[in-house]
Amino acid sequence: STEVKGYSNYFGTTLLDRRSDKRIDSKWLSKKQSHPATVYILFSDLSPLVTLSGGTEKLQQPEVRLCRLHHKDVEQCMSQTEEVTLIFLGVDLQLHTNLLMAHNEEVLQEGDDDGLVAWFALSINPTSAERFKQKHEDCYFLHPPMPALLQLPENEAGVVAQARSILAWHSRYRFCPTCGSATKIEEGGYKKTCVKEDCPSLQGVHNTSYPRVDPVVIMQVIHPDGNHCLLGRQKRFPPGMFTCLAGFVEPGETIEDAVRREVEEETGVKVGHVQYVSCQPWPMPSSLMIGCLAVAVSTEIRVDKNEIEDARWFTREQVVDVLIKGNQRSFFVPPSQAIAHQLIKHWIGMNANL
Amino acid sequence: STEVKGYSNYFGTTLLDRRSDKRIDSKWLSKKQSHPATVYILFSDLSPLVTLSGGTEKLQQPEVRLCRLHHKDVEQCMSQTEEVTLIFLGVDLQLHTNLLMAHNEEVLQEGDDDGLVAWFALSINPTSAERFKQKHEDCYFLHPPMPALLQLPENEAGVVAQARSILAWHSRYRFCPTCGSATKIEEGGYKKTCVKEDCPSLQGVHNTSYPRVDPVVIMQVIHPDGNHCLLGRQKRFPPGMFTCLAGFVEPGETIEDAVRREVEEETGVKVGHVQYVSCQPWPMPSSLMIGCLAVAVSTEIRVDKNEIEDARWFTREQVVDVLIKGNQRSFFVPPSQAIAHQLIKHWIGMNANL
Ligand SMILES: Nc1ncnc2c1ncn2[C@@H]1O[C@H](COP(=O)(O)O)[C@@H](O)[C@H]1O
Ligand SMILES: Nc1ncnc2c1ncn2[C@@H]1O[C@H](COP(=O)(O)O)[C@@H](O)[C@H]1O
Repeated sequence: STEVKGYSNYFGTTLLDRRSDKRIDSKWLSKKQSHPATVYILFSDLSPLVTLSGGTEKLQQPEVRLCRLHHKDVEQCMSQTEEVTLIFLGVDLQLHTNLLMAHNEEVLQEGDDDGLVAWFALSINPTSAERFKQKHEDCYFLHPPMPALLQLPENEAGVVAQARSILAWHSRYRFCPTCGSATKIEEGGYKKTCVKEDCPSLQGVHNTSYPRVDPVVIMQVIHPDGNHCLLGRQKRFPPGMFTCLAGFVEPGETIEDAVRREVEEETGVKVGHVQYVSCQPWPMPSSLMIGCLAVAVSTEIRVDKNEIEDARWFTREQVVDVLIKGNQRSFFVPPSQAIAHQLIKHWIGMNANL
Repeated sequence: STEVKGYSNYFGTTLLDRRSDKRIDSKWLSKKQSHPATVYILFSDLSPLVTLSGGTEKLQQPEVRLCRLHHKDVEQCMSQTEEVTLIFLGVDLQLHTNLLMAHNEEVLQEGDDDGLVAWFALSINPTSAERFKQKHEDCYFLHPPMPALLQLPENEAGVVAQARSILAWHSRYRFCPTCGSATKIEEGGYKKTCVKEDCPSLQGVHNTSYPRVDPVVIMQVIHPDGNHCLLGRQKRFPPGMFTCLAGFVEPGETIEDAVRREVEEETGVKVGHVQYVSCQPWPMPSSLMIGCLAVAVSTEIRVDKNEIEDARWFTREQVVDVLIKGNQRSFFVPPSQAIAHQLIKHWIGMNANL
């Protein structure tokens, strides 16, 4: 089988409660920043610092995991004069400071410790990153992010999705788009405000101050006969890979109409009924993939070569062969961490006898 | 009844085919700009120019409609030295230039006319807007946009949603957020590019160049007993109005988790199962409202006063009274153009005997 692990929602499953109420509590945030139980994850050029764990026993594969650092590990990076970006990610859904403190034999906090284990993402510059790697030989930055990020355990992938999207926003949106001035980061990293006093972006609430999330539709298009599906490929894909069609939702458009428009634009196939199935955050850098089943009402394919390289109807048997039997001679589909894989699988499960 | 007209998807129904392939065809675009059949809709300060039509016969209400202008009407505005913004919206799904030309008794185009009737949105400055109103006494700008926009016929509302979202993007995103330089508008208004040659935003594809669409979850929360729903109100609402809870989807978050987080943040109520129902573009300025049913697994309400003013469980009978019987003494809900109204109605339809 091509599927090694069963993912419920890669990039959409997390270890954390975001606790957005704490973002405006600067006293709490600064206390947690120096708390010894606090977890820091490090990023350089939008890639997280990881390490290999396990793998000492025979037959056991080492696993890629986030390096969970503590205040003492990052203190030096944070005191550099160079720019760092710090994002409050939330509090651990399972850990409690008391347990950790006893275990780590560190000083117990005073009575007003709320027991919450905070997580922060810290983005450092290339120089600091180089210095850090020299000191911590077992750690490395997952670069380039794709497909490397897909090696993370599912619950850590969700934390990385959150952190990477917000860090990417800060790295691309440094200046106020309304007036071109500098901006400052606020609310634990979830807001940025123009520093120019009379900028119109400061009057009222505007999306210029908040992170971007780009909705994308991705669809398993079903042939009117119910026994074929439409998959396509882009030029930049590895040879032989086909996947679901996809595209950005445009302003003033519904999800269902975006599905119809994109399928027709890319392949000339007309779609009737559209049904939402599930969604997935995709942190490249900040998409929300909205997965749908779409029923075609026409079958002739006219590929728009500007958008994709090829699109074909595949039979249910061909897809079962590739997905379940792992027979990848004719073509292959994205790995199970991608919502495309889940949509395709959802379709074969729909009325096949497997 | 509170419902005057039956809307299928206000702001999500359109008269146009977007024809995104034409956005890069500058020859076609410039030919259509001066074609006598081309439709222009005018905006000032993000509000569309409208007129009252009908209403001459007794008992017939006059209807608010977009002013459909032609090249000769806007030629002067467009040749002003002051800044105007022009957006290609698409081609009319029904009209054909030949028919129009014959009807208007204007010069027929040469043989290479493709018959497509293009629509453009043109945003003009306050001075031009004032001059325009003086010349066209029967026209006015729908200002402030809410709730005035809700008077438009449904298929025109979709055109306005598309145009307003893109114009709002241009008006707030004037400068390159990556480097702070000026930008120029391209591809019929759907792209903006930094003018600084070595800006990192020009290397590769980045969302800084494309319009924003902000996904928002909006949910009808059902009590575990199935016979109550949770509605809330914000301080800024008119007295007595209650509606579905809602909030922005955050980076790295699924639709379903955003629903759970927002309901718990605002009311303390915990949600289990979430089911997508339908969505609606909401051009204030550029949201995509994703409507869901959410089943509560706890019932105690603790209102977060920073987010909302009040939240209550309403019985099915109370909601039926207000929505179907038009009995608005106790409370009322948003008008039928809003997806909240549709979600609430969807719920009462679900297993009530009306
Ligand atoms: N893209 C966004 N645009 C506007 N407000 C946002 C955005 N993302 C998060 N917010 C937050 O949501 C609040 C407005 O929510 P609402 O009252 O539902 O319109 C703002 O005060 C912000 O704190
Ligand atoms: N928010 C966005 N971010 C990146 N590309 C976008 C966006 N909106 C529209 N596009 C267009 O979508 C193309 C990339 O689509 P894709 O190949 O599916 O990643 C770009 O070349 C743009 O023309």
